[in-house]
Amino acid sequence: MRDKALDIHKGGKLAISSRVKLDDAKDLSLAYTPGVAIPCQEIYQNPDLVYKYTSKGHMVLVVSDGSAVLGLGNIGAKAAIPVMEGKALLLKRFAGLDAFPICLETQDPEEIIKTIKLISCNFGGIILEDIASPNCVLIERKLQEQLQIPVFHDDQHGTAIVVAAALINATRLLNKNIEGLKIVVSGTGAAGSAVIRILKALGVNIIYAYNKQGVVDINNYHEYNFVVRELLDKGLINTPKQHNNTLSSIIAGCDAFIGLSGPNILLGSDVKLMNDPIIFALANPQPEIMPEVAKANGAKVIGTGRSDYPNQINNVLAFPGIFKGALKAKIPNITLEMKIAAAKAISNIIEYHELSPEYIIPSVFDERVVEAVSDAIMKLG
Amino acid sequence: MRDKALDIHKGGKLAISSRVKLDDAKDLSLAYTPGVAIPCQEIYQNPDLVYKYTSKGHMVLVVSDGSAVLGLGNIGAKAAIPVMEGKALLLKRFAGLDAFPICLETQDPEEIIKTIKLISCNFGGIILEDIASPNCVLIERKLQEQLQIPVFHDDQHGTAIVVAAALINATRLLNKNIEGLKIVVSGTGAAGSAVIRILKALGVNIIYAYNKQGVVDINNYHEYNFVVRELLDKGLINTPKQHNNTLSSIIAGCDAFIGLSGPNILLGSDVKLMNDPIIFALANPQPEIMPEVAKANGAKVIGTGRSDYPNQINNVLAFPGIFKGALKAKIPNITLEMKIAAAKAISNIIEYHELSPEYIIPSVFDERVVEAVSDAIMKLG
Repeated sequence: MRDKALDIHKGGKLAISSRVKLDDAKDLSLAYTPGVAIPCQEIYQNPDLVYKYTSKGHMVLVVSDGSAVLGLGNIGAKAAIPVMEGKALLLKRFAGLDAFPICLETQDPEEIIKTIKLISCNFGGIILEDIASPNCVLIERKLQEQLQIPVFHDDQHGTAIVVAAALINATRLLNKNIEGLKIVVSGTGAAGSAVIRILKALGVNIIYAYNKQGVVDINNYHEYNFVVRELLDKGLINTPKQHNNTLSSIIAGCDAFIGLSGPNILLGSDVKLMNDPIIFALANPQPEIMPEVAKANGAKVIGTGRSDYPNQINNVLAFPGIFKGALKAKIPNITLEMKIAAAKAISNIIEYHELSPEYIIPSVFDERVVEAVSDAIMKLG
Repeated sequence: MRDKALDIHKGGKLAISSRVKLDDAKDLSLAYTPGVAIPCQEIYQNPDLVYKYTSKGHMVLVVSDGSAVLGLGNIGAKAAIPVMEGKALLLKRFAGLDAFPICLETQDPEEIIKTIKLISCNFGGIILEDIASPNCVLIERKLQEQLQIPVFHDDQHGTAIVVAAALINATRLLNKNIEGLKIVVSGTGAAGSAVIRILKALGVNIIYAYNKQGVVDINNYHEYNFVVRELLDKGLINTPKQHNNTLSSIIAGCDAFIGLSGPNILLGSDVKLMNDPIIFALANPQPEIMPEVAKANGAKVIGTGRSDYPNQINNVLAFPGIFKGALKAKIPNITLEMKIAAAKAISNIIEYHELSPEYIIPSVFDERVVEAVSDAIMKLG
């Protein structure tokens, strides 16, 4: 694996190619001087034509500051490039879109916002990637306020959409009602906070949250960062009546555990206390609980972030279709309503009679997914 | 022409392509998670490996603020994109390099410098393009001081190198000695100032300069911008002993006129006053004097920026080879010595017995050019 991974990365993974012929002097005189002056003048007179005469309409910026890369943490801009190149290729592979990766040599939110804003006119949409929480929330929000193109932090919303899709299908399979669910979300960073938002919007009754500080409790409000405070302000996180600040003390009777935190946080004995447990243990590569342990302790449906277990909860199911639809319909921002529609589109790929504990979420290679998500987004655009 | 130019620009000219196979789950697990973590960790431990495991080593940034685009002037970022896409494609077509265009929505030099610096780690080199003088000089200089990759303002140095190459061959053809030349350069912006620098470095005896303010005269020192002042400070521009602030009053006895200014500045009667005149009238699309007029008044060698006349003085002869060589040899900046070597490499493509008044500079489609320039650069790296 190690040698193969290094081998395919030699020289990087991206190239630029031409959409026009450049064989002779005549081709050059159209694609470059003097012919190029004509589309320039057209755009100058009508700036909207930038979508018609440049690559903007199908070009996405994948941008990171390298502060929270995969499971690797804050490895900085240079070391993050292979991930961003990979992300760009996924967009090509699954949505036919073009994407270019930029890694910023700053982790200052204001500098990040300003830089992205100044380079944004070449792109039809922006994917923020692997930026640490809570900065990622601030950066996305401020950029989206200032730009007329979608700004989408995939670690937040991509994850939230696919978790929601998987949860919808797990409840269909187990004949549970989503509104009646009691859920523990472990992790209140980028992904956890976005999962809480989308699940609450789907109508989930009770969501408890757990993070490095323990059980999230409104009585400790002032200990939290602005993202967690905001969730508490809006009543999106419930405070358990009783707890001793451990996960075990709040898990009894819960229907689902959703882990977006770290390895080995959930015990088999915790799973035993749950009610027809749905376990999404998404920490990568080492999940919050190993699927074998969860299953042995009564879990009914198990999802992970890994490709070597069933039910891989993978962002690739969401962001290609979202950007395909958003760019096609020139949607200026991805609303919560669109995220929910995307989640439902993904879950609806699987018919009721096809559902099983090992098949609640389609494969990333299921070609119906990108079209279904793209259509769902466009309908709301 | 108009319809064809607009037609080939529909949807833009650039696409992103993959250098790796992405067919199945195994491919994904190498190019993206979990395999991608391995090159990330390698780069984190040894930042120089960014050249080995990312596209940096063959990826060039083509960046503009849209302040001085072709002959169109200050048309802004959006309207400049077609030119930058075209430039990126030229680099692909002639040097096999990948290049990505970014147009910045600011014309503030400090913001431009900061933004380019923050996005630079993805690129092996930077081409500044169509940025107005004198900002372009400042921006290039400060960026080159701060970055370990070549920063090259093509409107300055690309032009200067090809003008130098053409002038070398014109003097070979006319059996003139370059050190003995007396030259008038019309235009002291980006291109004009760089031409003056390289010609003086080649040993040209006397260079008079002419711009919108008239004849450049050290007695008017305080009227000029910092670029012209610097040329005067270093003695690179000579002040004519007598003049009435017109071009006609300084052209008598000169060997060459090099126009990097605007249409119809040089008169047929001016050419008549010169000594075996070499006329490079490079304003585009309308040159400083039409070749027919120059010829009728005694010009011995004529070059323009246009592809529909002989001796096209075209930057495409320089920048692809320069970046090919610089990236291959990881040269951190393009020195004046390298620019002179590039000019000589271009001129040497044509053997003495092949030279003629209509053939002093090779065609952009002459495949020997890029290799010759690239080799010349690498030898000095």
